[in-house]
Amino acid sequence: MDMAAFLPACAARGLRRVSVWGDEIERIGVARARALLADTGLQVYGYNRAGPLRDGDLDPALLLDRAKAEIDRAAEFGADHILIFPGGLPAGDRDLPRARAGFETALAVLRDHAAGSGVTLALEPLHPMVAADRTTLVTLGAANDLCDRLGTGIGIVLDAYHVWWDERLAEEIARAGGRICGFHVNDWLVPTSHILRDRGMMGDGVIDLRALWQMLRTIGAGDVIEVEIFSDRWWAEDPDTVLDLCLARCRTIFA
Amino acid sequence: MDMAAFLPACAARGLRRVSVWGDEIERIGVARARALLADTGLQVYGYNRAGPLRDGDLDPALLLDRAKAEIDRAAEFGADHILIFPGGLPAGDRDLPRARAGFETALAVLRDHAAGSGVTLALEPLHPMVAADRTTLVTLGAANDLCDRLGTGIGIVLDAYHVWWDERLAEEIARAGGRICGFHVNDWLVPTSHILRDRGMMGDGVIDLRALWQMLRTIGAGDVIEVEIFSDRWWAEDPDTVLDLCLARCRTIFA
Repeated sequence: MDMAAFLPACAARGLRRVSVWGDEIERIGVARARALLADTGLQVYGYNRAGPLRDGDLDPALLLDRAKAEIDRAAEFGADHILIFPGGLPAGDRDLPRARAGFETALAVLRDHAAGSGVTLALEPLHPMVAADRTTLVTLGAANDLCDRLGTGIGIVLDAYHVWWDERLAEEIARAGGRICGFHVNDWLVPTSHILRDRGMMGDGVIDLRALWQMLRTIGAGDVIEVEIFSDRWWAEDPDTVLDLCLARCRTIFA
Repeated sequence: MDMAAFLPACAARGLRRVSVWGDEIERIGVARARALLADTGLQVYGYNRAGPLRDGDLDPALLLDRAKAEIDRAAEFGADHILIFPGGLPAGDRDLPRARAGFETALAVLRDHAAGSGVTLALEPLHPMVAADRTTLVTLGAANDLCDRLGTGIGIVLDAYHVWWDERLAEEIARAGGRICGFHVNDWLVPTSHILRDRGMMGDGVIDLRALWQMLRTIGAGDVIEVEIFSDRWWAEDPDTVLDLCLARCRTIFA
């Protein structure tokens, strides 16, 4: 199901907001994507993504320019926030502290670029199991630290799959407060057969999604719930059926 | 290679300490294991393991008794420390905070049981990707918290594979100080094909093992280095060759 089919499918189910991916926009073209959003009346919530800001041998200046262009496009689409990813460790590099410092420097540049655009730069800590190849930002605590140091214009997207295991979760959610600008839901399956593509449908795994959502409600977040299930299993199913199941599960759990 | 072959293989290479597993002792028998240790002159360092303390439908009281028996055997073998594992979430249970509180209660009982035995109870935080099915203790920070609350008799084993990704690693190692009673080495491979059995040989992955070891040296730990590579790939190779390679890699990295 491409974006041209996905947007009407969401609108038909009474959804009002949708998150979009830059590469999906490119598949159908910017003009058509904008027309479809206008036709369906859907508001763009999250925009995925700017980054990685480190990627193999690619010039970091080029990657920074690409990230700026993505921020501009997110603003053009009226997105609430854009996800910013540092990337993992370049091949042959084991210096995580240096990679993290480099991301902070780049993030400050992007924060200044985004100022006045109306788009929040969203940090999304991913699960530590993808620290080497996807992102060096792997805990909510570290995302909060970055927000403390970099000030306004930066928010945090909390994805249940990536943070549910964290012993400090409750205290870091309280600390994040108004920084939380998105909540992604899915589930952790036991066993998990693949590090990237075996996420579960909400309710099929071990995450206490309702408790997590209630923590967010306490700090005034969690009003928008976004389903994100990277899964070979669910990708192989009929998209309309999966969409209906997602909504049914959400209505049961987040009620 | 069973324990009866492993101990002489270690002694022949000039090693002075060895960690043992309860199930490996049972395979060859307690008497033979003790005789082999005496013959080779090897000292027992770590003893693996007590726990899980939660495991499916098994009675927690039974599991606690089993853990006490393992502590007794660790003491009988003159072990420096015994690894204590809480276990993951029981099937159908999503309440991580409750599971963690239950572990703390059980750990206090085991600490009292072990008092005077000369064996340190060692907490080993495992990687968050095994939080559901292996252990609810997944960060060095949480292990430090437990030590703060439970007092003496409890130490921490640091395994590079499980902690290398942590943004708070340096500060939590400094906080751990004299609690660190073991250092396990291996490497994180990119890509990682299996959550449990695809660890890498030191130097083949992305972990900055030398930097981690130097952090430990700064606080007076890291004097004993223990190789632990759960790996279908290395298990399939000739054990003597693997042992030689482990030693060669360690001598290069930790020098």
